[in-house]
Amino acid sequence: MKRVFATEANVVIYPASGTGAWEAALVNTLSPGDRVLMAETGQFAALWRKLAERLQLAVEFIPGDWRRGADVAAIEAKLVADKAHAIRAVCVVHNETSTGAVTNVPAVRAAIDRAGHPALLMVDTISSLGSLDYRHDEWGVDVTIGGSQKGLMLPPGLSFNAFSAKALAATDRATMPRSYWDWREMLASNATGYFPYTPATNLLYGLAEALAMLFEEGLPNVYARHDRFGEATRRAVRAWGLEIQCAEPADYSSVLTGVVMPEGHSADAFRRVVLERCDMSLGQGLGRLSGKVFRIGHLGWFNDLMLCGTLAGVEMGLALAGVPHRKGGVDAAMGYLVDAARHALPRAA
Amino acid sequence: MKRVFATEANVVIYPASGTGAWEAALVNTLSPGDRVLMAETGQFAALWRKLAERLQLAVEFIPGDWRRGADVAAIEAKLVADKAHAIRAVCVVHNETSTGAVTNVPAVRAAIDRAGHPALLMVDTISSLGSLDYRHDEWGVDVTIGGSQKGLMLPPGLSFNAFSAKALAATDRATMPRSYWDWREMLASNATGYFPYTPATNLLYGLAEALAMLFEEGLPNVYARHDRFGEATRRAVRAWGLEIQCAEPADYSSVLTGVVMPEGHSADAFRRVVLERCDMSLGQGLGRLSGKVFRIGHLGWFNDLMLCGTLAGVEMGLALAGVPHRKGGVDAAMGYLVDAARHALPRAA
Repeated sequence: MKRVFATEANVVIYPASGTGAWEAALVNTLSPGDRVLMAETGQFAALWRKLAERLQLAVEFIPGDWRRGADVAAIEAKLVADKAHAIRAVCVVHNETSTGAVTNVPAVRAAIDRAGHPALLMVDTISSLGSLDYRHDEWGVDVTIGGSQKGLMLPPGLSFNAFSAKALAATDRATMPRSYWDWREMLASNATGYFPYTPATNLLYGLAEALAMLFEEGLPNVYARHDRFGEATRRAVRAWGLEIQCAEPADYSSVLTGVVMPEGHSADAFRRVVLERCDMSLGQGLGRLSGKVFRIGHLGWFNDLMLCGTLAGVEMGLALAGVPHRKGGVDAAMGYLVDAARHALPRAA
Repeated sequence: MKRVFATEANVVIYPASGTGAWEAALVNTLSPGDRVLMAETGQFAALWRKLAERLQLAVEFIPGDWRRGADVAAIEAKLVADKAHAIRAVCVVHNETSTGAVTNVPAVRAAIDRAGHPALLMVDTISSLGSLDYRHDEWGVDVTIGGSQKGLMLPPGLSFNAFSAKALAATDRATMPRSYWDWREMLASNATGYFPYTPATNLLYGLAEALAMLFEEGLPNVYARHDRFGEATRRAVRAWGLEIQCAEPADYSSVLTGVVMPEGHSADAFRRVVLERCDMSLGQGLGRLSGKVFRIGHLGWFNDLMLCGTLAGVEMGLALAGVPHRKGGVDAAMGYLVDAARHALPRAA
């Protein structure tokens, strides 16, 4: 897992879903009443905030419009204003599954450094890990949160914390009651080849195979493949004349693409038609995007032809559901994929 | 799951192993600094104590010799002495997996009632649920903790809390920070057919099938089958001239039988011989019983012939490892199983 997180630091594996690893990141490093800075990038950022508040943390939540990554300038301003260094952690979601927008993690790190602020940087990579380029060490992240059911291609039930020496040192002053999530217990047991309690054994076998698949393809190739899917999908969406939920091209996600439904049409009614007629389940709009957005996932064990099939399902569904659109989305995607394949071919001598 | 717990009260399912459900029972009902009463019945009671102490609870631990269930008279004495009712919970392990001794839960309930004490009664049934008769409601238990990987015949990764209205009411004054384990969030989401976060989906499919298997056989028949395995195994152990770890016949476990190695012989060396020569993995002695005890498991999806094969492996292993013993253990078990089968046959007219 260290290779996937791109870290030489510590990685622990929990028998829990991703929400558990969110909680683990906070309870290992913080105390009740501590201030944390979070950024409203979408539904998952909102859920993480709710979790932090239930853990008796004081959350400053930078508002956002759910159409781009975290507002780095706002983060920097908050940190600069926090002369007393009361903020203990900055928490961002790398890939917002609810919108298809990516937060620029190195930019957040640079903002923290410019502010000369000692807050820990925590990043949720539950839906990006193993799909998008990610570098825990190089980007100066203190705690990275991951899960099994997205880029690692497994059922849900495993989750991860990668954490820096600085984060580990924070456990000494952190008074949040903890046991199941305690890093120190995990590290002590792992060092002897064991876990402190029963692990999710069968998922660990699956994880070994998932990692073998990722390393066989090569992580840079995996990331390039997802980038290709993202670009091909966006070309299809534009060809249909529909709007991409992520409004900031620099923040486009290669994991999924959120698509805005034309005014007066229900995204959920459209999704039902696609499910019934094409046997394909598209992601729903979450939270404030409910009924207004549908999501095209293109992550994990997925190839060009699976993407073409997926886009064909969307295009046919738009026609069947009577949603105003232009044809030509699948054509646009295929054109891009052909170009990409030509460039990837070895040159003739 | 309510049928398996024998309750009309609430049951929640966590994507976590059993230790997580231990933690859930405590963090939903207690506050840091609260006193809890626990009984040293073996390694799992000791681990639960350690977890409670990490959660900043003040544990009174009634000592025990790891050869019987919880000392009910000592529990009663502690509660009677606690005039201020400072003790918030009494926590016992139903089936001690490390020893093969069962705690008499109705007797613990009666002791609490005789003392007129308001403490919550919490019971770990991780290794007994679905194998031993258990009655959450009838026995007046407040929180029952269960896991997927024993009597429910699944991989580890799911765990359970069944809890009374009294336990649920205790959440209001309990100040332990909690989110992942929070019963109220679980109940609110479950009421709409959902979970508050990603569940361990594939294990839920397995659980549906495990429950179908248990209900097809009938829970009373499942419990009677395990009782038969326990008695047959103990007859084999006595025929070998070896000692049963559980020293109190009323507390014998029908889930597993701990066997004491003769002085001067290593249980682990014996277990290695059985593994290498017979391809069978016996349970090791845990904690203070390390090297001194081996454990014969007879739970879950298991029948008379599998038990005979298991006992044959032990008997041949004793011979191969040069452990002093008498032959005849398998014979003794078969004799008992034949009698049991005859009694189960319908009478001729």
